[in-house]
Amino acid sequence: FDAATHAMTTLSTGGFSTSDRSMGAFAEGGADIVATVFMLMGSLPFGLYVLAVRGRAGRLFQDSQVRLLLAILAFTTLALTLYLWIRDVHEPVEGVRLAAFNVVSIISTTGYATADYTLWGPAASGVFFGLLFLGGCAGSTSGGLKTFRLHIGGLALRSYVLSIARPHATHRPHYNGQPVSDDEMSAVLSFLFLFLACFTLVAVYLSAIGLDVVTAISAAATCIANVGPGLGAMIGPAGTFQQLPDSAKWALDIAMIAGRLEVVTLLVVLTPGFWR
Amino acid sequence: FDAATHAMTTLSTGGFSTSDRSMGAFAEGGADIVATVFMLMGSLPFGLYVLAVRGRAGRLFQDSQVRLLLAILAFTTLALTLYLWIRDVHEPVEGVRLAAFNVVSIISTTGYATADYTLWGPAASGVFFGLLFLGGCAGSTSGGLKTFRLHIGGLALRSYVLSIARPHATHRPHYNGQPVSDDEMSAVLSFLFLFLACFTLVAVYLSAIGLDVVTAISAAATCIANVGPGLGAMIGPAGTFQQLPDSAKWALDIAMIAGRLEVVTLLVVLTPGFWR
Repeated sequence: FDAATHAMTTLSTGGFSTSDRSMGAFAEGGADIVATVFMLMGSLPFGLYVLAVRGRAGRLFQDSQVRLLLAILAFTTLALTLYLWIRDVHEPVEGVRLAAFNVVSIISTTGYATADYTLWGPAASGVFFGLLFLGGCAGSTSGGLKTFRLHIGGLALRSYVLSIARPHATHRPHYNGQPVSDDEMSAVLSFLFLFLACFTLVAVYLSAIGLDVVTAISAAATCIANVGPGLGAMIGPAGTFQQLPDSAKWALDIAMIAGRLEVVTLLVVLTPGFWR
Repeated sequence: FDAATHAMTTLSTGGFSTSDRSMGAFAEGGADIVATVFMLMGSLPFGLYVLAVRGRAGRLFQDSQVRLLLAILAFTTLALTLYLWIRDVHEPVEGVRLAAFNVVSIISTTGYATADYTLWGPAASGVFFGLLFLGGCAGSTSGGLKTFRLHIGGLALRSYVLSIARPHATHRPHYNGQPVSDDEMSAVLSFLFLFLACFTLVAVYLSAIGLDVVTAISAAATCIANVGPGLGAMIGPAGTFQQLPDSAKWALDIAMIAGRLEVVTLLVVLTPGFWR
């Protein structure tokens, strides 16, 4: 039963565990290493697997989203491993295993934990807070902002700065070898802004009803991005949301639904014009 | 000397005080009420004063930016006054005076304080954290995101949601009676995204070097928006930045310069193409 539950909620990047210690309870047999691989696979674009089965596996590693996601994962895991080593928290072999599992778990929005990474030091809390927003690739089961939006957001910034530096040159950003239209950039930037606006709204509401700042902002982020654990003693990777007041739970329910529907969909459904 | 210093740093929304207690030291004579009015005036578009002197004072209140800013100020002040009253912290008369002064001080990015509003309750900290980002109107001396960007950001979101709800209708948002072009919306959205990206970068860096989460994120916000006080015991309205480590101060120096130059200008100057 444990094996079946974890298998299903790993590949679906859901992250429901049968143990209060999450995947940490099954780490002795190496279950976390297997889970790291399959959580990662669950956050790549599923369409590319179809191409891979048809003999075009190379496409998987030529995709901009996949490359950016793997780069972020590799960089964060190595930086955290180094940080754990320098601070004498874990030796490199143990450290890389823990860092990789927890980083992949948060970025893929699975939400398992094998360690209370908030105890790794202040930098770790900051890094994991940032990771809460990222999410995996579009076309996967993961939530969050999604890798391609970060990429296109970055491209939009670059072309904005370039257009001011050299106003008479044309700067047409490319993504995955295709030019990105103004409409597509606008849509991605609007989404990023909307996502952050919702996050701010929920975070301000949660602190207004009396949660401390760390719990309020990490709860808002983790629920909108559909990750799971937040930060702080109460809702951190070693805690639960059970003790939160009901008014906070209702707000987080809405945040989770809005995040899973990518916010815009929910607003569209609430637009009177849509039903006319 | 006290009067001259405060007069100059009120109207310029600079916020340098001669007392460790900031404007709170001069509140007995009602200096804070005078300062509230002039900080507000310092955060309205100066161009409209020229029109007012030429006999077109009505334009000041027809301007979208001014109306939105006044609406935000009125709403926040009333909400905080009510909050202070309900929690038995201050009676309404005292409460509205304190709330108005501190809200105007933060939104106008002046940075004076007449009370340690972090002690008003958890909601107050959340609200003041949000206010750190806003800033006054474009065309004033205040920093932050600026009111017109929030307005245009909101318009962009609305037209994005509407364009999905009714794909075949045209949604041309208007600002101050003028249609907003795609380029202008893109520029504003890019700016918002860039500002928040810089904030995140500085906040993650500050928590990485060991500051607690509240100090790290509020220091990043208050410096990029050129406000002044942050949140928390150390850099809150009753504290100073003096005890921060040097590495944090360097990062915040850069953040303040980047914020004052509105980030983009700094990036443009750093673009090799600009110098060619």
